[in-house]
Amino acid sequence: MTELLRLRRDASLADGVLLEGHIQMRLGKLGPGLEQAVALLVGDGADEAALAGAAGEPELMALQLLLRKLETTGWLERVLVDENGEPVATLSPVGHELVPVLVRPPVVVLSRFAFLRIDGGETVLETPRASLRVTIHDPEAVLRVVALAQPARSDDPLVRLLVRAGIAVAPGGEDGFALAQWSFADLLAHARSRVGRNLGDYGGSYRFQGRFEPLAAVREQFEPATALPAPDLAAVADGDPPFTQVLEARRSIREHDDEAPMTAAQLGEFLYRVARVRGRFHDDRQELSTRPYPSGGAAYELELYPLVRLCAGVEPGLYHYDPEGHTLGLVAEPGPKTTLLLEYSRFTAQMEQPPQVVILLAARFGRVTWKYESMAYALVLKHVGVLYQTMYLVATAMGLAPCSLGGGNSDAFAAASGLDYYAEPAVGEFILGARLDAR
Amino acid sequence: MTELLRLRRDASLADGVLLEGHIQMRLGKLGPGLEQAVALLVGDGADEAALAGAAGEPELMALQLLLRKLETTGWLERVLVDENGEPVATLSPVGHELVPVLVRPPVVVLSRFAFLRIDGGETVLETPRASLRVTIHDPEAVLRVVALAQPARSDDPLVRLLVRAGIAVAPGGEDGFALAQWSFADLLAHARSRVGRNLGDYGGSYRFQGRFEPLAAVREQFEPATALPAPDLAAVADGDPPFTQVLEARRSIREHDDEAPMTAAQLGEFLYRVARVRGRFHDDRQELSTRPYPSGGAAYELELYPLVRLCAGVEPGLYHYDPEGHTLGLVAEPGPKTTLLLEYSRFTAQMEQPPQVVILLAARFGRVTWKYESMAYALVLKHVGVLYQTMYLVATAMGLAPCSLGGGNSDAFAAASGLDYYAEPAVGEFILGARLDAR
Repeated sequence: MTELLRLRRDASLADGVLLEGHIQMRLGKLGPGLEQAVALLVGDGADEAALAGAAGEPELMALQLLLRKLETTGWLERVLVDENGEPVATLSPVGHELVPVLVRPPVVVLSRFAFLRIDGGETVLETPRASLRVTIHDPEAVLRVVALAQPARSDDPLVRLLVRAGIAVAPGGEDGFALAQWSFADLLAHARSRVGRNLGDYGGSYRFQGRFEPLAAVREQFEPATALPAPDLAAVADGDPPFTQVLEARRSIREHDDEAPMTAAQLGEFLYRVARVRGRFHDDRQELSTRPYPSGGAAYELELYPLVRLCAGVEPGLYHYDPEGHTLGLVAEPGPKTTLLLEYSRFTAQMEQPPQVVILLAARFGRVTWKYESMAYALVLKHVGVLYQTMYLVATAMGLAPCSLGGGNSDAFAAASGLDYYAEPAVGEFILGARLDAR
Repeated sequence: MTELLRLRRDASLADGVLLEGHIQMRLGKLGPGLEQAVALLVGDGADEAALAGAAGEPELMALQLLLRKLETTGWLERVLVDENGEPVATLSPVGHELVPVLVRPPVVVLSRFAFLRIDGGETVLETPRASLRVTIHDPEAVLRVVALAQPARSDDPLVRLLVRAGIAVAPGGEDGFALAQWSFADLLAHARSRVGRNLGDYGGSYRFQGRFEPLAAVREQFEPATALPAPDLAAVADGDPPFTQVLEARRSIREHDDEAPMTAAQLGEFLYRVARVRGRFHDDRQELSTRPYPSGGAAYELELYPLVRLCAGVEPGLYHYDPEGHTLGLVAEPGPKTTLLLEYSRFTAQMEQPPQVVILLAARFGRVTWKYESMAYALVLKHVGVLYQTMYLVATAMGLAPCSLGGGNSDAFAAASGLDYYAEPAVGEFILGARLDAR
């Protein structure tokens, strides 16, 4: 097998400047030998011997420096070809910051973070430890990848390529705390949602524009819907304690006073102060809205679903809060599925009694994904945190008992609400009730 | 090939009760035929014909109902064995809510969400679309999985198993918006960080206790460190506007007044009000702290790294805020790497001029992972949102210009700070400066 080096296929060279997307790099003045070597790289590629031959003795050191620079800045692919010239595997950079692994352990195994998927009809190996992919062209090579479940010598050409890519590592090489603490899913989420190791476009790319209709800025309400009492915001603002006092007084309170429970007026005031729609507007792409808490791109994908066990003036059940009409729409009557949701919350909050109200946060995910690429889910979770702190502070100012939860069961929410797991998944939970010391 | 059904290997049956972890299910009263069939399931397993034979004609319908119930509640494995009785692949439930795909399209391809990894020395296929895994015992079977990059007939026994698992799907079956909008990384992050589809323990499992030392509640400061001006909190609270007024006035402001820039006193007051340590304490496991904003389990993994371009009384550079000593420790002098970070922030905020200050949020990830399993990274992102809203409100109360950013480059932060990408990655960015209308 031979390893060829070549310019990555999504890049081009013109007038001495390498170009890929909006990334460019000037090669600078090259000697005649280097010019020839670069021509090989831009063409079908060549192995290191052929590149050295093209560069010639006087420019050999300059060639080494150039190749190293091109590889670490993500311009070079490496292609393994077999005796018949058929490609076996290709290591392709995706980003432009690459740290190839140059010290090769004699024995290696597949990294715990490596994974194989079909992407666009191709068999691809990736790892969140680097911004690259290895495409497997020869199915038989997949067997040799999978064989790395057991430690194997690293002098095979394919294994060398995998070591260079960070996909095969020394046995035990990922056992230190810094790496051991990352689950595969967590590291993948982190690497792909941040610039640098994402494998695609990033940020506000509007990739679904023209392909799917954008979702309305405000969700349709469930029926039947009941009006909630609304506060007089000016009066509320006048009577409110100073901001710092609320911020400093905020704490999680896990006991609710079931003898003097929350009221519909309190629930209405809370939802109004936290989440009401203050207005809709339109940029040149989609409808947006403004609400009291911040949201990336004014997308406001989060919906509030109060699950009411005990609230004076509100029948128990799972509701949706319409932030524009200020109503509660009935999503589900109380039953085993809503009880399960309540129990998950009680258990997570480590409460003796179930909470009076759980506000389930669901994301109309399409509000975010229609515009944002790679970072969409990370953005949703940041929004959950933004809303948590907003709810904490409003509850504190109102003398209610707030507590945010670190997790919940999205399948159970889908079952209880009848909402699609993928279109509007539950992403957060917040419990609310009357304080024992409020009377 | 034969498909055997059997009780999942991590479960047991005693006194008519199925048990797996803390999950249990009572089988109820079974007829003599069903007793025999269940004995086969608990043993080495049996194919459907053998199970029917054991149950006998009168209990055949009851057997079908029992198998369906056991499968949808996650108690049954399906094992493909070849002519020699060697296992080829096993479909194992992980959670206990399973919706097997029963309608088999005639032609299928591998799902965009399916992936293959080595886990504990085994070759495993998973998908965030279900709480299960398919273990591939026969390496040759991997080739048949990978061949599903192209559409293939679904009547092969292995392909049937993959269809049932949701790993092979109808071509185009994932092209609707609800599924198309999910990147592989996003859906995996969501499924694995929530109860129901996580594949392991969940929540506060303290899985690294005894294996690694917990990190101190407060990070060590960088040297040299400089004291920051601290506000008189009582005076601040007295002079503060009412909470609702701050909440309603909050907005993102992307222009900074470079002629009358932020001051060291403002930066000190801001950091003190947002993030100072109010005290340390110890539960029976690890050291914790209290700070003005909420943090799951009082872990407080987030560190604030102010990158200062222009602030009266503070030299430009990348700093770390010590929330206990209220000092700025110098992390890096200004240079190309800090300029790159500044430019990422300017670009992300779509600002004409670079911001006066960028507060980079990094996570001492071990503070969270030492205790929390499956949900660790999701928790960190929620904390980022909590801190964003806290910073927004404090900045608004102080008359500063705040703007949170939806993303950044964690590799660039690691390079500029010298911090380990895995131990203390950048997870958020917030820009701050003097308002143009503040003078």
